[in-house]
Amino acid sequence: MKSIKIFAPATVANLSCGFDVLGCCLDNVGDEMVISITADPGVKITKIEGANLPMETHKNVAGVAVEAFLKAYGENIGVAIEIYKKIKAGSGIGSSAASSSGAVWAVNHLLGNPFTTHELVKFAMEGEKLASGNAHADNVAPALLGGFTLVRSYDPLDIIKLHSPEDLVMTVIHPQIEVKTSDSRSVIKHKVTLKKAIHQWGNLGGFVAGLFTEDYDLIGRSLDDVIIEPLRSILIPEFNNVKNAAIAKGALGSGISGSGPSIFALSKGMKVANDVATAIQDIYEKTGIDFDIHISKINSKGIKIIEETEYRK
Amino acid sequence: MKSIKIFAPATVANLSCGFDVLGCCLDNVGDEMVISITADPGVKITKIEGANLPMETHKNVAGVAVEAFLKAYGENIGVAIEIYKKIKAGSGIGSSAASSSGAVWAVNHLLGNPFTTHELVKFAMEGEKLASGNAHADNVAPALLGGFTLVRSYDPLDIIKLHSPEDLVMTVIHPQIEVKTSDSRSVIKHKVTLKKAIHQWGNLGGFVAGLFTEDYDLIGRSLDDVIIEPLRSILIPEFNNVKNAAIAKGALGSGISGSGPSIFALSKGMKVANDVATAIQDIYEKTGIDFDIHISKINSKGIKIIEETEYRK
Repeated sequence: MKSIKIFAPATVANLSCGFDVLGCCLDNVGDEMVISITADPGVKITKIEGANLPMETHKNVAGVAVEAFLKAYGENIGVAIEIYKKIKAGSGIGSSAASSSGAVWAVNHLLGNPFTTHELVKFAMEGEKLASGNAHADNVAPALLGGFTLVRSYDPLDIIKLHSPEDLVMTVIHPQIEVKTSDSRSVIKHKVTLKKAIHQWGNLGGFVAGLFTEDYDLIGRSLDDVIIEPLRSILIPEFNNVKNAAIAKGALGSGISGSGPSIFALSKGMKVANDVATAIQDIYEKTGIDFDIHISKINSKGIKIIEETEYRK
Repeated sequence: MKSIKIFAPATVANLSCGFDVLGCCLDNVGDEMVISITADPGVKITKIEGANLPMETHKNVAGVAVEAFLKAYGENIGVAIEIYKKIKAGSGIGSSAASSSGAVWAVNHLLGNPFTTHELVKFAMEGEKLASGNAHADNVAPALLGGFTLVRSYDPLDIIKLHSPEDLVMTVIHPQIEVKTSDSRSVIKHKVTLKKAIHQWGNLGGFVAGLFTEDYDLIGRSLDDVIIEPLRSILIPEFNNVKNAAIAKGALGSGISGSGPSIFALSKGMKVANDVATAIQDIYEKTGIDFDIHISKINSKGIKIIEETEYRK
């Protein structure tokens, strides 16, 4: 039995000016998974630790993602999936995307990479569809490809890996409150003014240019979302205080991670990212709301192999 | 008397997915200007050839741009401006921007560059304000800086020079019809759907990434404007036929230059750009509408010195 143990990273999507298109991959926040090729055909979830998630394959995001993979692969082989969940569900840092991406990446690896990593995105998106009703790619793309990714288009699916400057560090605070998906969706308006849309695409262009030229200052100036953040941030306690404190401590910019409630701050260098963490921790400690804080470099690789066993019985 | 003769390039602005923010600079289409520092204080337009434009300084885009420059410079020196106009007014390839950009660049050069080229943009924008009532930067920025430029923000003004891959060639057809500014403005809607806005900024991100990675295919896939082009193209005869013919001949993409009526097609390599020119010429010859066709590499320098005379009397 071929088996692999992997690290499946958390991700920050809907990154400020890049709503619905831009995401990035974290380095030290993520799940562990053990994926094995077994003798019995069919996909089985054999173990889940750290979260109360469905063991039934068709109800589990990793299960449906691997089933989509195998359908395209054309052979009904046996796959066993163990999930050691560390990313909390509903945190806004791509918990479901880590599971579905990790599972398809591992199976692809164990089978000798019949698909490119880019091609795996559409299989992992089936997991997102199960999780949220919407086959979005902005978490699975960075989880699989690493670094910063751009979903240029869904039809046809076109994912672009962007350059990731070495010194960028994310500080993410996850307030342990529930923001209902229905609420975070309902506050978004169907129409926007052309003026704001132009402002937004100017900033997205600036952000992408900043990544490629490693112009940290430009990256910071471009982290400005005039469309979604003003609407969704009202659902997140202390959002403005956290954002202002992060920027006061030297962060390049700050915004909502995914559809919240997590808030990210992007900084140049670990020292600033640590200072930012201390400042936002101070704010949240006064609220009485439980929270986690993560400080992570950008993971430019995506999924990582922890251990590989050729013929484990 | 110090004097300089310059080439002031034409530009393609509102470049497809980059409406209001993205422009590029042409290499062999442009005006010539002779700018001199004179003994008599004050800005004078001393000669205009090739167009019927105002000789009064405050009514001439080059005149007001230089006056804005001198106001910031703080000395009321004498400047004489000769304009040899080759870019037709109302063509949609930055005729006024060439004059205002060329004039301020030349005066800055003659005075030993007291301002950076980036700083000149705001002076040249005064010329655009006179020409169109709107101090836009998307033509003057590429005319001054060369290559592809992004207007990330107007307040504060933030112009980003992007990378310009060597093999890009523009084919531009200028149908000699008048499209009234009021018409090209009135067809634009004040509000857009969020879905289309996301599509647009995904493409702008892809275009910028394509420039930096020299991925010509990605540049082509990203040249897709779902917001402005469908509305404004109805004002331009044969727009869809020209666009389709250009792409059929191998162009990476095609769209409206500025607010029209010119149509651009961007190609990889001179051979394709020539084939595109032939194909769209065939279409326009059947219409009975007079037209010019330009084929030009991207000018990554901007304004160019033709001749410099230290002490011409």
